[in-house]
Amino acid sequence: MDVKFINPFVMAAQTVFKTMLGIDASMGKPILKDVRATSGDVTGIMGLVGDRKGTIAISFREKGAIFVFKTLIGDDCTTITPEVVDAIGELTNIISGQARKEFEKANINLKAAIPMVIVGHNVELNFITKIPIISLPFNFVADNGEKEVMFLDFSFE
Amino acid sequence: MDVKFINPFVMAAQTVFKTMLGIDASMGKPILKDVRATSGDVTGIMGLVGDRKGTIAISFREKGAIFVFKTLIGDDCTTITPEVVDAIGELTNIISGQARKEFEKANINLKAAIPMVIVGHNVELNFITKIPIISLPFNFVADNGEKEVMFLDFSFE
Repeated sequence: MDVKFINPFVMAAQTVFKTMLGIDASMGKPILKDVRATSGDVTGIMGLVGDRKGTIAISFREKGAIFVFKTLIGDDCTTITPEVVDAIGELTNIISGQARKEFEKANINLKAAIPMVIVGHNVELNFITKIPIISLPFNFVADNGEKEVMFLDFSFE
Repeated sequence: MDVKFINPFVMAAQTVFKTMLGIDASMGKPILKDVRATSGDVTGIMGLVGDRKGTIAISFREKGAIFVFKTLIGDDCTTITPEVVDAIGELTNIISGQARKEFEKANINLKAAIPMVIVGHNVELNFITKIPIISLPFNFVADNGEKEVMFLDFSFE
């Protein structure tokens, strides 16, 4: 896959972490994803269509998802409630929107579908495409000092 | 939701059943879906974007998914293999494509993202939208004479 399809997602994730969550996210090594499963416990999915087409999956482990909810919404919680699910859906929307802005700089216009959120560890989730699936890990430190990671998996034709 | 957003999906599902699977599918009563879970065991998801935006989920029980695989591909199998998953992804593509044609008749132009397929019974799956989620059941008889159903769940803004 052309690197020009990767950079918009990197820029989008890091920008949204900084502006919406107030923290820095450092990208780890991108990998080719060959596991047909969700990368974390709470996974937002978004279809992006226009001059190109693709689908992204943003996945957090439970504690990371709760951190996002707390930081975005300001409430407290200890488990994956419907409100946490909605917060991850909203973050999926926001990262998708930012990625679309980045793609526009390369004259690639995209629109976003309605996000869906899957809850569950190691849920079998298959991208139906012959194009490679790239998984970008973004490392960050949550408010309790714990190291967390967000996976941004995508395939883009 | 306007009925004009429902009919293209009904037409698409019934047309694809007839032309691709060679059988009639009779639609049961549409319901408002308030359960945050997959409707069946193998679930294809597709984002549709353009003049409107939406996401659909097409869900079969295990035996129904295997019937689709056997009928589309011609091979035999007894469990949900990666090939069965790909067949449901392909059917999701085909039904989405047919629905897009139906929407075009109403001057609504849409494009389709990359489909994803979830495998698992009662997997928590949330549409992140304030728009109602409609679930259309399509009843059909598989080759072994068993009654099966395909659920077409969608939300369309």
